[in-house]
Amino acid sequence: MNIYEKSLKMHEENKGKISVDSKVALKEKEDLSMAYTPGVAEPCRKINENPENVYKYTSKGNLVAVVTDGTAVLGLGDIGPMAGMPVMEGKSLLFKEFGGVDAFPICLGTKDPEEIIKTVKLIAPTFGGINLEDISAPRCFEIEERLKKELDIPVFHDDQHGTAIVTVAALINALKVTGKKIEDIEVVINGSGAAGIAIAKMIISIGAGNVILCDRKGIITKENAVGNKYKEIMAEVTNKHGKTGTLKDAVKGADVFVGVSAPNTLTEEMIKSMNTDSIVFAMANPVPEIMPEEALEAGVRVYGSGRSDFQNQINNVLAFPGLFRGALDVRAKEINEEMKIAAAYAIANMVKAEDLKEDFVIPNALDRNVAKNVAEAVAKAARESGVALI
Amino acid sequence: MNIYEKSLKMHEENKGKISVDSKVALKEKEDLSMAYTPGVAEPCRKINENPENVYKYTSKGNLVAVVTDGTAVLGLGDIGPMAGMPVMEGKSLLFKEFGGVDAFPICLGTKDPEEIIKTVKLIAPTFGGINLEDISAPRCFEIEERLKKELDIPVFHDDQHGTAIVTVAALINALKVTGKKIEDIEVVINGSGAAGIAIAKMIISIGAGNVILCDRKGIITKENAVGNKYKEIMAEVTNKHGKTGTLKDAVKGADVFVGVSAPNTLTEEMIKSMNTDSIVFAMANPVPEIMPEEALEAGVRVYGSGRSDFQNQINNVLAFPGLFRGALDVRAKEINEEMKIAAAYAIANMVKAEDLKEDFVIPNALDRNVAKNVAEAVAKAARESGVALI
Repeated sequence: MNIYEKSLKMHEENKGKISVDSKVALKEKEDLSMAYTPGVAEPCRKINENPENVYKYTSKGNLVAVVTDGTAVLGLGDIGPMAGMPVMEGKSLLFKEFGGVDAFPICLGTKDPEEIIKTVKLIAPTFGGINLEDISAPRCFEIEERLKKELDIPVFHDDQHGTAIVTVAALINALKVTGKKIEDIEVVINGSGAAGIAIAKMIISIGAGNVILCDRKGIITKENAVGNKYKEIMAEVTNKHGKTGTLKDAVKGADVFVGVSAPNTLTEEMIKSMNTDSIVFAMANPVPEIMPEEALEAGVRVYGSGRSDFQNQINNVLAFPGLFRGALDVRAKEINEEMKIAAAYAIANMVKAEDLKEDFVIPNALDRNVAKNVAEAVAKAARESGVALI
Repeated sequence: MNIYEKSLKMHEENKGKISVDSKVALKEKEDLSMAYTPGVAEPCRKINENPENVYKYTSKGNLVAVVTDGTAVLGLGDIGPMAGMPVMEGKSLLFKEFGGVDAFPICLGTKDPEEIIKTVKLIAPTFGGINLEDISAPRCFEIEERLKKELDIPVFHDDQHGTAIVTVAALINALKVTGKKIEDIEVVINGSGAAGIAIAKMIISIGAGNVILCDRKGIITKENAVGNKYKEIMAEVTNKHGKTGTLKDAVKGADVFVGVSAPNTLTEEMIKSMNTDSIVFAMANPVPEIMPEEALEAGVRVYGSGRSDFQNQINNVLAFPGLFRGALDVRAKEINEEMKIAAAYAIANMVKAEDLKEDFVIPNALDRNVAKNVAEAVAKAARESGVALI
């Protein structure tokens, strides 16, 4: 059996992957009188007196909703909320396993951004945080922006920021390996969906010399971005030297290629046109923009991808469990830029100086120490940036 | 420490009561590749091909949302969604403990029936059933009716039907003890909120001779019900002999008193005016309509209440876990009258003939065999009434 057949069998045998369980013993009659009536009236009264007490007496502070509309599930596209359920359950498991977060799937039967926003706001009293997942661009931008503004708990779209954090972590270490400085490099990002735009923003915010963003048609410029709100915004802060043309033109002389696009879009010829000591993160899944053998053969110094069977796997699981752990621990009102950057550096720093090399710029996705360190760094950043409530 | 102080301490020490856990092992790298990418794509594809497969490969079929707006929590009233959270978490534990159902609290930040209906419909793809809880009357009637009509999964308002099922179970056995027949008895129900109306309907549907429904002002008649949609409907099917007056007038000559009203509303004098071998279920909580000593002193033959420290505790936990277990097991499209009546008889039948007596007409709330028997009876009734999909 291959991994798909094995997965199907496992899902069928267990009828899904999550369960809701008790944190308290329910052995004697008195246990029930404390967990339910009559005793339960007392925490209810205390919360009614002071809403802050909901964090003291209920699970809210550790509950995260994993919210999707099923419009951009894995590479499968718009398969709907029910077909997205296995991914959301899987995400819930990763939250628990790596971050100790109790995450629960909420698969929504609507694609309308206003309905999604409204629904998430109405169910928010139960949750300490909202993880948006697999919602297609550009709808995901508006949904996240509005929810961040209108809710007082952390709202985080993992496809954007989780991917950006881990990519930046890998980039930080790849720059150490190649001896280049962030302010000197030119980065080409191929793919201007949720992940591409978030990666571009974060690489700019850590001080990159220049970022060039490409979509299917080529380099995004002030001229050709007109009419697309999000590309217009990005055109203002990218492509400093006004390059025009296709991806081929973009990568000429660039130091870094980041692919969140489609299989086989980067060629050996393009790589040869890049600057020396080039860095390529080819994250299309399951087939990357270029395979590692070809990339290294063409002269790439540091290669990473989304795959666990290749070197340098850039995997979101390195970020979101620790990030939410840290945010929940200090009851952050939001997940801000400072916290995301702290997470990226915390991930990068998990690779010890003596271990750092071309094929090891990012920790193993299964390294359980990563989330702990990310959580601490994120909690600290939340406190220092004034968004921690405790 | 009393039970309230103990409960508060327990809630604080555990920060609430529920956790979300994994049903599958996550030890090796391959476990993650099956539970998450890349393997998880396969169940997603299968569900996309055929939505029925969501029951085969996900947790949906065993997930129940415990939905409240916090408007009628315990006897505390409209304390809001966050203050209702401890009760919803407690309910989730009972679902799991007695029925093996994975139930999750959804506390809604709105009291508007249309918004509640809309939100529940939009989150329904995640769930196999909806348990409505502690939503005030008469809003709860419309919300349940609409959701039953518009969703294809079971929707059940426990404050109405759970209470009705367990009351009817106790009544069935009390009639055996007193040697009366259902078609001969007159039943007075004091309290015409969610529970009172549901109990009246169910007692009528099992064939009671006459039911008289009272509210704070006294007997509900065709004349005084005008203007209240739900009371108008009830006035049509109750009070066959056109009695008028107060509760005192209602109970004169009656066989059964069911109280879902307020403390100390039934007097010894009223009881003495009832028929011989009278049955009193005084379920106001924590202080019943009349205390057991007084009731028995005044000549009541069978006394029951909502309290665990008195004889014959009429507790919803005898119904809802087994009811949902049975409904989910056969993937019932809805929970219909036949299934509710089957549940009531299954509960009643758990008291063996040789054990049946005045102070033991209903099984102990902690008897773990009850839910199993209820589930089997409910599944059978669902199949026979044509609402079971498997």
